[in-house]
Amino acid sequence: MNVVEKYGGTSVGTIDQILAIAQHVKEMKEAGHNIVIVASAMGKTTNKLIEMTKAISDKVNQRELDSLLSTGEQRTITLLAMAIDALGIPAISLTGYQCGFITSHHHAHARIKDIDITNLKKHLDDGKVVVVAGFQGATENGEITTLGRGGSDTTAVALAAKLGWECHIYTDVNGVYTIDPRLYPHAKRLKEITYNEMMQMACLGSGVLETRSVELASKYHVKLFLGKALEKDKRKGTYIMETIKNLEDMPITGISIKDDYAIMRVNELPNDGKFLGELFAMIAKLDINLDTISQQLTHDGKVNFSFYCNKQQSDTILEHLDELHSKYPISRLLGFVKLSVVGVGISTHSGIAAKVLNTLSAHGIRYYMITSSEISISLTIEEKDKQKAIQVLGEAFDL
Amino acid sequence: MNVVEKYGGTSVGTIDQILAIAQHVKEMKEAGHNIVIVASAMGKTTNKLIEMTKAISDKVNQRELDSLLSTGEQRTITLLAMAIDALGIPAISLTGYQCGFITSHHHAHARIKDIDITNLKKHLDDGKVVVVAGFQGATENGEITTLGRGGSDTTAVALAAKLGWECHIYTDVNGVYTIDPRLYPHAKRLKEITYNEMMQMACLGSGVLETRSVELASKYHVKLFLGKALEKDKRKGTYIMETIKNLEDMPITGISIKDDYAIMRVNELPNDGKFLGELFAMIAKLDINLDTISQQLTHDGKVNFSFYCNKQQSDTILEHLDELHSKYPISRLLGFVKLSVVGVGISTHSGIAAKVLNTLSAHGIRYYMITSSEISISLTIEEKDKQKAIQVLGEAFDL
Repeated sequence: MNVVEKYGGTSVGTIDQILAIAQHVKEMKEAGHNIVIVASAMGKTTNKLIEMTKAISDKVNQRELDSLLSTGEQRTITLLAMAIDALGIPAISLTGYQCGFITSHHHAHARIKDIDITNLKKHLDDGKVVVVAGFQGATENGEITTLGRGGSDTTAVALAAKLGWECHIYTDVNGVYTIDPRLYPHAKRLKEITYNEMMQMACLGSGVLETRSVELASKYHVKLFLGKALEKDKRKGTYIMETIKNLEDMPITGISIKDDYAIMRVNELPNDGKFLGELFAMIAKLDINLDTISQQLTHDGKVNFSFYCNKQQSDTILEHLDELHSKYPISRLLGFVKLSVVGVGISTHSGIAAKVLNTLSAHGIRYYMITSSEISISLTIEEKDKQKAIQVLGEAFDL
Repeated sequence: MNVVEKYGGTSVGTIDQILAIAQHVKEMKEAGHNIVIVASAMGKTTNKLIEMTKAISDKVNQRELDSLLSTGEQRTITLLAMAIDALGIPAISLTGYQCGFITSHHHAHARIKDIDITNLKKHLDDGKVVVVAGFQGATENGEITTLGRGGSDTTAVALAAKLGWECHIYTDVNGVYTIDPRLYPHAKRLKEITYNEMMQMACLGSGVLETRSVELASKYHVKLFLGKALEKDKRKGTYIMETIKNLEDMPITGISIKDDYAIMRVNELPNDGKFLGELFAMIAKLDINLDTISQQLTHDGKVNFSFYCNKQQSDTILEHLDELHSKYPISRLLGFVKLSVVGVGISTHSGIAAKVLNTLSAHGIRYYMITSSEISISLTIEEKDKQKAIQVLGEAFDL
């Protein structure tokens, strides 16, 4: 097998963990597999570095921050390469730059433009295990960039796509569950899930994988596996792929939750689109992707407008909204969560939306904004009802 | 003034120190000076990283170690650039690679082959303060290398040479003293010292500057200043330059000490040079530069051979000497130090050697091997006599 294995921060938090991964790599290599390892910064390194910069300024230079943060992964990969090498397996570490990750110049959230894998290939052809720094790349001018949230997963999937290899994402959970097991202890682990479902789960709040890496895997048909680091039993984990076998059996794949939701409202706007134009220009500048947006015409030809985002984003928006706000008062409601029911069966199995709404109503749970896609139905509910909603829907759909 | 300022690890050990340097840079810049900063890793970072690798293996891959260690300086320079930037002074950090330091491929002790300062120049022309990572470079293939002991000083001097600027090396001592003040509290700070004297002081054991950086400064006529970080009074510090003004007044510039000396002896060798050929080939492989070497012919045409090195080197040599050792037993004497009297006046002021030897004899101090150069006289003495020898020579020459 040819595989790109990605280890997150909690899997490389200590030297002992690094030694254990090195041992695993040795066994893989001796069994004839080819491996590329992608690693994150050790444990809480990235957060600690960010903490340090706060003693310097609230708003540090992003170009410098990227170069600073990139040292976290660089330390992990050199230590891991040393550990593998010390076991007699030839290994070499490559920083994002050395591995040919060419990115856009957007510091803190750069996009991969291309990967020049000449160097990587040479080392693989020499029989080496290559250990690549996740989360980072460089512009054509050699400026160090980072890829933003979930960046190391993106690194791994992009490499797997380029090499045509399988990609295993190792973390501290042993797969994707129908519902977050911390919220619903009866939740079942999914053996398989489609890219589309996984993307919905990811972007609707299930924290195991960022949408971006799943999107990339889907685009380049990379077979993804998500499991617990160093778990020998490969049945304990979830494959994410194009189509899955037991498609017909499960109309609903899972439920995901996004916490800390805010509802923002502006009423009685003139229906000329001017406010919205200004608002969206500002929100784009703040680098916020709004979640659900809706507007209704009132009987006198004005517009009531509302959008949803998380609390932190709503703070940022209100901070920067002074001028607009004084013209059109924006009200904010806090204390909501967004609950999403996800499954490729939703579009083909009728009655699922009705079952969701009826189940909630039957238990006295109020819901607000409802949106739906081909494979998901999302509802905003009050925070206080979250646990109960998960419980009753989990039981209703046997998740 | 155009100046390259170098800050060692003890000067950038904390965020507060980094903020203080940033404030100093702001003042310099506002006074119209152009500055390049070269910084080392914070505090004991390098040692801590090396310590970590020891949990992996006694003998780690040097290529990986270089990439690991280089992150230390990278963190300092990004934090420092952020701090300067936060004060409203445009600043940018450059790693060794980004700054164009092209080195040989000898990991852990690479030599600078060239510096392509195109990038550096561009940023300086834009009016920025450039903060460069000391101690590091990269091969033509982008492999990260480190320059070995005193490497950050070498980085600073090399940049100053290339730019034609002055170079200030800041550390935790405020200049070069006639004798290490910890050994001789009456020692005087030197206002000025020549490159040659400084090189002798450095290579004969005075730890303030590595020979290599002084050699480079001398070769490219870089005006060096050595002083305490953030000391406002520039009289407190030592200028190192081609010739100095008060040359005639002081035949002796100072005394330096190399501790932990070993004398290695092989007696009754056949006079065919074979043993020495094999010995030196081996020692070169161990990357050891021998200190003093001497041989005498015996009355029956054989050779008695001895050389001096520090204890650690003698350990390494004995470890690797098995085969040679069994043919020609090598004896080792420990417990010596090498004391050197340095000064450009030595070759022009007669009687200095005699005064040194007579002073020691008068106080019952035995000396062994004596060597001399144009500007120094070195003697091997017993460790127990070290303090007394410094005292009596310091007084005799008014140091």
